[in-house]
Amino acid sequence: MRKLYDLAGAEADRRFSPYCWRARMALAHKGLEVETVPWRFTDKEAIAFSQQGRVPVLVDGERWVNDSWAIAAYLESEYPDRPSLFGGASGKALSRFHASWADAFLQPSMMKFVVLDIWQHLDAKDRDYFRTSREERLGKSLEAAVANRDRDVAGFRDGLLPLRLVLKAQPFLGGDRPLYADYAVFGGFQWCRCISDFKLLAAEDPVHAWRQRMLDLFDGLAGRAKGYVA
Amino acid sequence: MRKLYDLAGAEADRRFSPYCWRARMALAHKGLEVETVPWRFTDKEAIAFSQQGRVPVLVDGERWVNDSWAIAAYLESEYPDRPSLFGGASGKALSRFHASWADAFLQPSMMKFVVLDIWQHLDAKDRDYFRTSREERLGKSLEAAVANRDRDVAGFRDGLLPLRLVLKAQPFLGGDRPLYADYAVFGGFQWCRCISDFKLLAAEDPVHAWRQRMLDLFDGLAGRAKGYVA
Repeated sequence: MRKLYDLAGAEADRRFSPYCWRARMALAHKGLEVETVPWRFTDKEAIAFSQQGRVPVLVDGERWVNDSWAIAAYLESEYPDRPSLFGGASGKALSRFHASWADAFLQPSMMKFVVLDIWQHLDAKDRDYFRTSREERLGKSLEAAVANRDRDVAGFRDGLLPLRLVLKAQPFLGGDRPLYADYAVFGGFQWCRCISDFKLLAAEDPVHAWRQRMLDLFDGLAGRAKGYVA
Repeated sequence: MRKLYDLAGAEADRRFSPYCWRARMALAHKGLEVETVPWRFTDKEAIAFSQQGRVPVLVDGERWVNDSWAIAAYLESEYPDRPSLFGGASGKALSRFHASWADAFLQPSMMKFVVLDIWQHLDAKDRDYFRTSREERLGKSLEAAVANRDRDVAGFRDGLLPLRLVLKAQPFLGGDRPLYADYAVFGGFQWCRCISDFKLLAAEDPVHAWRQRMLDLFDGLAGRAKGYVA
């Protein structure tokens, strides 16, 4: 059976990693079944075989792949007869920008809204690691990082304009149907939704409607996951 | 003969519109010759046939197209046997995000560095229109907008991280070769280079090396254009 090591909170069914969600959506897009294995930040031994310490890690028969982009590339080359994640070689090259925007802009911006909520949902054994590493990265306490989030969300929404302009012109980043670029960006929104009740998006935002379409894909794979009404 | 109405400064050969550069690079990508016609902001009658007041406007035989995205889409559908600008239908849909990022983030950020330099290069008849409309948009004088640019450029360079991450992985946004996504983003850099000596990029930035590759394309089409050493 195919297995995906998937970040979990104190509750084993609270799965919130944006990168693991990219992989889960990509697997669903390919129509591939997978057993997800709950994993915590400090469970380094469980994935030691992958020679690194982060999830997602996909085990597919005799092979394993880590890193969400590498997993998508692996699925595309190993399962070429299933629906394409990229729409060809050019589409793959172009999709790197969507993933990089999510990595470099979207998710770091979101972190300042949900980092304390994440800490509160973690397994006890992960809490010290998470607080220490994230406070170092943010340069302040988790409490201070989120203190002004109700005010700061307006600037965040302004920063979504590149996404909003596309979604005014077409239903998905991939066009009429979702592609990996959609999953790469959606991962961040699903991360927040699974871990926090903070209202990221205004109801009338085209980005909100797109997120709902993403939540509904694959019989509601993401929408049915444990989380909050977003 | 094919004609492109192309924004010019006081000097007819100073062509600096980011959107016109998108169109010129797209035409060169398709291997299509074009005569560029210098146009100023206040020359509304010259393009009245297009039923709107902005350039680029492409006249191709009996037909005309305005708007840089529409021009790229027109060239792709009318000249399908020439090198593709998008790499297929998915690539076209995905490229909207690059263009929207340039529209919504890149160029508005750059405006705060070069807006006064633009005004200084304009034809006398365009200066009042430009100052009034841009000061209204910026909410301050052109001089105030650029006053802290030496300090503000650090934040701008940080904001290029999505672009930088892609260009660390591959030579062009389109992969091994440039696509329209590259031209959409490059338009902003060429706008600045043609109108200002302000140093936008650090020499060691992978974005700087990519810009140089773009300047060298098509026998140096963009690099030979009147501008500043960037």
